[in-house]
Amino acid sequence: MPLIAAATGQVPSRRPVWFMRQAGRSLPEYHEARAGRGMLECCFDPELVCEITMQPVRRHDMDAAILYSDIVVPLRAAGIDLDIVPGTGPVIADPIRTAEQVAAMPRLDPASVGAIASAVGLLVDELPAAKALIGFAGAPFTLASYLIEGGPSRNYERTKTIMLAEPELWHRLMGSLTDITITFLKAQIEAGVDAVQLFDSWAGALSEATYETYVAPHSSRVMAEIAGCGIPRIHFGVGTGELLAAMTRVGPDVIGVDWRVPLDVAAQRVGCGAGGRDVAVQGNLDPTVLFAGDAVIERELTRIIREGERAVDAGARGHILNLGHGVLPNTDPDAITRAVELIHTL
Amino acid sequence: MPLIAAATGQVPSRRPVWFMRQAGRSLPEYHEARAGRGMLECCFDPELVCEITMQPVRRHDMDAAILYSDIVVPLRAAGIDLDIVPGTGPVIADPIRTAEQVAAMPRLDPASVGAIASAVGLLVDELPAAKALIGFAGAPFTLASYLIEGGPSRNYERTKTIMLAEPELWHRLMGSLTDITITFLKAQIEAGVDAVQLFDSWAGALSEATYETYVAPHSSRVMAEIAGCGIPRIHFGVGTGELLAAMTRVGPDVIGVDWRVPLDVAAQRVGCGAGGRDVAVQGNLDPTVLFAGDAVIERELTRIIREGERAVDAGARGHILNLGHGVLPNTDPDAITRAVELIHTL
Repeated sequence: MPLIAAATGQVPSRRPVWFMRQAGRSLPEYHEARAGRGMLECCFDPELVCEITMQPVRRHDMDAAILYSDIVVPLRAAGIDLDIVPGTGPVIADPIRTAEQVAAMPRLDPASVGAIASAVGLLVDELPAAKALIGFAGAPFTLASYLIEGGPSRNYERTKTIMLAEPELWHRLMGSLTDITITFLKAQIEAGVDAVQLFDSWAGALSEATYETYVAPHSSRVMAEIAGCGIPRIHFGVGTGELLAAMTRVGPDVIGVDWRVPLDVAAQRVGCGAGGRDVAVQGNLDPTVLFAGDAVIERELTRIIREGERAVDAGARGHILNLGHGVLPNTDPDAITRAVELIHTL
Repeated sequence: MPLIAAATGQVPSRRPVWFMRQAGRSLPEYHEARAGRGMLECCFDPELVCEITMQPVRRHDMDAAILYSDIVVPLRAAGIDLDIVPGTGPVIADPIRTAEQVAAMPRLDPASVGAIASAVGLLVDELPAAKALIGFAGAPFTLASYLIEGGPSRNYERTKTIMLAEPELWHRLMGSLTDITITFLKAQIEAGVDAVQLFDSWAGALSEATYETYVAPHSSRVMAEIAGCGIPRIHFGVGTGELLAAMTRVGPDVIGVDWRVPLDVAAQRVGCGAGGRDVAVQGNLDPTVLFAGDAVIERELTRIIREGERAVDAGARGHILNLGHGVLPNTDPDAITRAVELIHTL
């Protein structure tokens, strides 16, 4: 598998590429497959998860499938009352803000994510041998921000207030979420995924010092608990230029980089070849570039591949090509197909 | 004026502080003064602008007043059909996306911002001698993003598409917006402001290379055109950690820093004391910290003041205390008053 080779310091048979959010909203066959059903309901239907996860692999010849799921799936499976509202995102019925609510946080029974494990099983059978299956979970901070704010947020003021003003309460909540994340990832790993990505989507709202004190210990525990499973662990958050070194210290094998930081700069920043961990780098085409036409796409991909090569020369284990954030909903699927084809020839 | 002293490398008589968005939505007297009138209408009422601008200076003893206005005010004055919609922000009636629309971009007649110049005149009379009056404009990129997207945006996909795919069209639009910004700032300077802040609020969505090619030449022209006016020029955008050096090269006297980058790190990054421009630094309390109680506020302010001192030791001209972004609407005004009082004693 080219993706696993790049993640582990071996020479891939071709340049591995996948795109965050490749499964889902940009594809007409996705909307057809969902047939108007709610997103959360779909995430617990193994056949449908398998089909949606396979769609971009078939259409674009991606080198990896990323399990179709959502960050809040394990929270829902643990019994927290929430839904995914079209146009808004996750909405939590009773946002978690008190000591009583934190004390009552449920644990995740692996049986309650059996549908996700079943989907992984179906995908392991269906995916061609060269394609990696990437499992997926939200990191504790990003889960906490949804639970505390009650949904997506612009400023995370309630989250940061609890973090800074009630640190013991904060760490108890983060501890519960860390347990849930570990259980969810282990269920996927036991079912057969080839790699996992831990999304700390909103960590970029924090300074490095705040991240180190309130977030890193919990993300580190997630990474450590699955370190022995023998599969590469990818870690990513958007707008995390200031956090790349700290996020690498929590222990991933691959660090995802958004489009604001060139890959060779990222490799240097996390200490590749200079006594830091020689992680692989993943990224980092600005998803808006896919709207700008083939000439611009080729120019940007050529630059990114060159910067990725410099990162590897400097000590990074490898380079996995990806976007610097998720595929945007209005992206032309044919532009994605052509970009992937180009990446495999460059 | 302590703020002007800190901006120009002199020793201020006390530690200067002002907060972005100090005038407006967090103050009950602001909502009373507006009495339900539309925001844009209020921005063109000199007496009301003067009153709203004065409110936080009176209440919090800030060392500077920032002119109550909005980034789109000069666009409206130039004749572009737009409004500020409560809960949404600026909404442009006909978003600018074609060569014809760019060719038809209006110029700004200084007479059409006479109300703003009048407000400045009233404020010059009313402000105590030690308080600086800061004028204000949006930078060309941020104005372009509103005009092209039609309002606030999350991903700036249309803006970046025109920038990357139609660079000549992009630069023509940016040229028009640069002219408008220069005219608007000069009108404020002639009316008597003591300093100006150029907000490139959304520049943090760009990589440094993209910023350098498509944005910096225009922001540089704004800075150069007002360089001879003899007042400090502040430059700020949120999430601009990767851009601080490039934004400093466009020529401001003071660089604003958000909470993600410690002030001493920022001073080093822009080259203070190492052959770069020895700008002053401004910032950088996370606005959410104002929700976390006095003990946390004091701890964070103490840290920021220490980092500001290190920045000055390293070669920065001075430190102006501010938030790392604007005051959030639900902030307790009393927490702001106590924070300012504390800053003046630390």
